[in-house]
Amino acid sequence: MARMRYKLTIAYDGTAYCGWQRQVSTISTVQQTVEKAASYIANHPVTVLGSSRTDSGVHAQGQVAEMTVETQWETERLRMAINSRLPPDILIRTMEPVDEKFNIRKAKSKRYRYLIWADHDRPVFYRHYVYHYWRDLDISAMQEACRLFEGRHDFIAFRGRQDEYQTTIRDIFHCHIYRRGPIIIFAVEGNGFLYHMVRTMVGTVLEIGHGQGKPERVMELLVAGDRRAAGPCAPASGLCLQWIRF
Amino acid sequence: MARMRYKLTIAYDGTAYCGWQRQVSTISTVQQTVEKAASYIANHPVTVLGSSRTDSGVHAQGQVAEMTVETQWETERLRMAINSRLPPDILIRTMEPVDEKFNIRKAKSKRYRYLIWADHDRPVFYRHYVYHYWRDLDISAMQEACRLFEGRHDFIAFRGRQDEYQTTIRDIFHCHIYRRGPIIIFAVEGNGFLYHMVRTMVGTVLEIGHGQGKPERVMELLVAGDRRAAGPCAPASGLCLQWIRF
Repeated sequence: MARMRYKLTIAYDGTAYCGWQRQVSTISTVQQTVEKAASYIANHPVTVLGSSRTDSGVHAQGQVAEMTVETQWETERLRMAINSRLPPDILIRTMEPVDEKFNIRKAKSKRYRYLIWADHDRPVFYRHYVYHYWRDLDISAMQEACRLFEGRHDFIAFRGRQDEYQTTIRDIFHCHIYRRGPIIIFAVEGNGFLYHMVRTMVGTVLEIGHGQGKPERVMELLVAGDRRAAGPCAPASGLCLQWIRF
Repeated sequence: MARMRYKLTIAYDGTAYCGWQRQVSTISTVQQTVEKAASYIANHPVTVLGSSRTDSGVHAQGQVAEMTVETQWETERLRMAINSRLPPDILIRTMEPVDEKFNIRKAKSKRYRYLIWADHDRPVFYRHYVYHYWRDLDISAMQEACRLFEGRHDFIAFRGRQDEYQTTIRDIFHCHIYRRGPIIIFAVEGNGFLYHMVRTMVGTVLEIGHGQGKPERVMELLVAGDRRAAGPCAPASGLCLQWIRF
């Protein structure tokens, strides 16, 4: 038996879960579900720490987490064993041994994607993975608004109430939006995100796309820092954590 | 009020339904669900006749149906009104008035698609729309087998038990298979299909892809007509009725 520390990449359909983070009650979360499966296979209690606390209903293609287990199994066999105990909507995509230098709290870059179904008719097959918004949208105004998010800014106007971070300053490396058929794709990459930040950015960009303010409204929000002046928090279903780099 | 006859194109996620066809019991089917919505809007009982009786769990992008309603509404307004009474997993995509010459029983061509998730790791986001099959597959042998289905043949070896059609001879216009990343796409177009026929074709082609027989096995099955010699009926989740032409 060896004590091993692993870095995991996890994909999940968040529809059925109350977010990533473990809860005290009997509510089902992704973290608890993965911990239960890993503990069963390792035959001792395992704690799985995630890099991002995705919200209730938010999806992930590449959540990153770490765990320490006592095992005599090879890494790939252990990954497959834990996957066999996970439900169909969660998958450990990769698993690799890491040493003490790996710090789950020290992500360099994270990418989120938000999908908007911009068609009058409902998204029959994509309904759990998009936000259905059928009003007219000016994509070039939205693209201009997205560009204004790039750089180092104080995102205090874009954070949710429950936020507990000490600083509200974040670096946004890329932010853009484009259309593919009935779907509008919003993609943002940064060194970190506040609670509800991506969804409030999307809600604000949608308002601008619908004519409620010019793209420069983004700059005013970043400067003034007034949450009430920003757009609403867009629904969780459209959001997906794409990847995290360390 | 005018008595109008309409041709409908309907998309549905079949996961939650016991197929298209109305059932005597309280079981939920797509036909019953559309009839209920149409009857509510028209304010009189409406019968909706489909062109294909898709099975429990099978999806459709383009089921075609007809109905007659007493209405004073414009077609597009009526379509939107009925859609507003339908659940999120069913959508009337198009609706057009047709005269007595339109016969729902006289389809010229139908296209079905079957998706196989050919990766060891599970399909987290596609799980309701694919068949997860992770054994090695020889795509070129499968492609050869598909070509042998093309033409006019007696498909008695590929029909399900509950079939009630008088003739088992069908024309297959195209049948092919190809890979896109982790997904293998089987597509077939013909003038009609027997009960379980597409899924049994897929089950047989998968066996050939896995080395259980050569592609020529398809020709032997078409000639000998022995159901027990064909492959199993592949799961419903992978199947989708793409379109129907009249």
